[in-house]
Amino acid sequence: MPKIVDHEQQKIKVAEATWRVIRKAGMENATVRQIAQEAGFSPGLMRHYFSSQTELLAYAMNLVAERVRQRIESYPFSGTPLANILWILGVFLPLDEERQAEMEVWLAFKVKSLTDPSLQELAMRVRAEMKAVMEQAILSLIESGEARPGLRADAESEPMLVYIDGLALHGLLYPDQMPQSRLSELLKLYVESLCNESNEQGVTD
Amino acid sequence: MPKIVDHEQQKIKVAEATWRVIRKAGMENATVRQIAQEAGFSPGLMRHYFSSQTELLAYAMNLVAERVRQRIESYPFSGTPLANILWILGVFLPLDEERQAEMEVWLAFKVKSLTDPSLQELAMRVRAEMKAVMEQAILSLIESGEARPGLRADAESEPMLVYIDGLALHGLLYPDQMPQSRLSELLKLYVESLCNESNEQGVTD
Repeated sequence: MPKIVDHEQQKIKVAEATWRVIRKAGMENATVRQIAQEAGFSPGLMRHYFSSQTELLAYAMNLVAERVRQRIESYPFSGTPLANILWILGVFLPLDEERQAEMEVWLAFKVKSLTDPSLQELAMRVRAEMKAVMEQAILSLIESGEARPGLRADAESEPMLVYIDGLALHGLLYPDQMPQSRLSELLKLYVESLCNESNEQGVTD
Repeated sequence: MPKIVDHEQQKIKVAEATWRVIRKAGMENATVRQIAQEAGFSPGLMRHYFSSQTELLAYAMNLVAERVRQRIESYPFSGTPLANILWILGVFLPLDEERQAEMEVWLAFKVKSLTDPSLQELAMRVRAEMKAVMEQAILSLIESGEARPGLRADAESEPMLVYIDGLALHGLLYPDQMPQSRLSELLKLYVESLCNESNEQGVTD
């Protein structure tokens, strides 16, 4: 058993080194050699954990998604529906250093998936998961009576996903024009637009 | 004079070869060697036009923006404000093969700009241009009396840019979930949300 745990921990070490290489030098420099150097692994040791670059990148991409999943699963959802939806959407925005790192790496993987079919399935699975999380958040808002009249969870979840991904993209690419304070502000305005007008004050405060 | 024209045309040839390499094999394979091969240029001839990979990539990135600019400048804006705003936002979405190619390449350049400062300034300049185009489109909608009460061009242009970039991203990354028909549908729903309720019928038809 300790051996298995160690095996997994070593793979996580390599994945985290992969993230650092991508953030520092771009996907074009995320070669097995560069990643081994960053992780402090010999080429032989690398081959022990990953048989190919493709396998390594898929593992490193999946680990980003897994970290985000764990964060959502550990959230108590004990606040108001409004606070919950702001929190859940904030999970997918670069609102602190940790999320910014995750999202930079995730975006690089998504763009790589355009030319690397082995990453496409994961990208699509995570998209479906995010959409489901958002649909659930909208449903809670509707059930609480705070949603604006006519809001439908099935119709709004995809535009919501698109807008949140757009915000994340702008936060990463244009940090001067879209600092964390502006991301938070636009997020609040968006959530307000889903709510009864009488509730808007509560979101803004 | 013919020599200057030829010089520029040869550079455009190289830029277009760069786009093809990026689309087929990803930014990580957009090396001077690969691009020369795709363009059918010798290494010596490549050096005649571009002194470095950085210069080449910046030129190829700028040419994407230039093509989009030209398309906007040649549009007569002779339709209704609603038709105009749908057209102008459609310029930035992968609604046909040509725009899909442009946007895939543009996204790859934007992501590369995260680790390549020489591309950042252009990415930011184009963002500002797009925002200005959108602000103008919203102003036209307001002036025509078709905007919903309270719509403000200065406040809406940035959320609009974010949403359109989110749509473009989803159209590129998830073509199965977000085919051109769905992109057009979400675009219309978004433009409807900016309009007087009495006008919505006209947009949907």
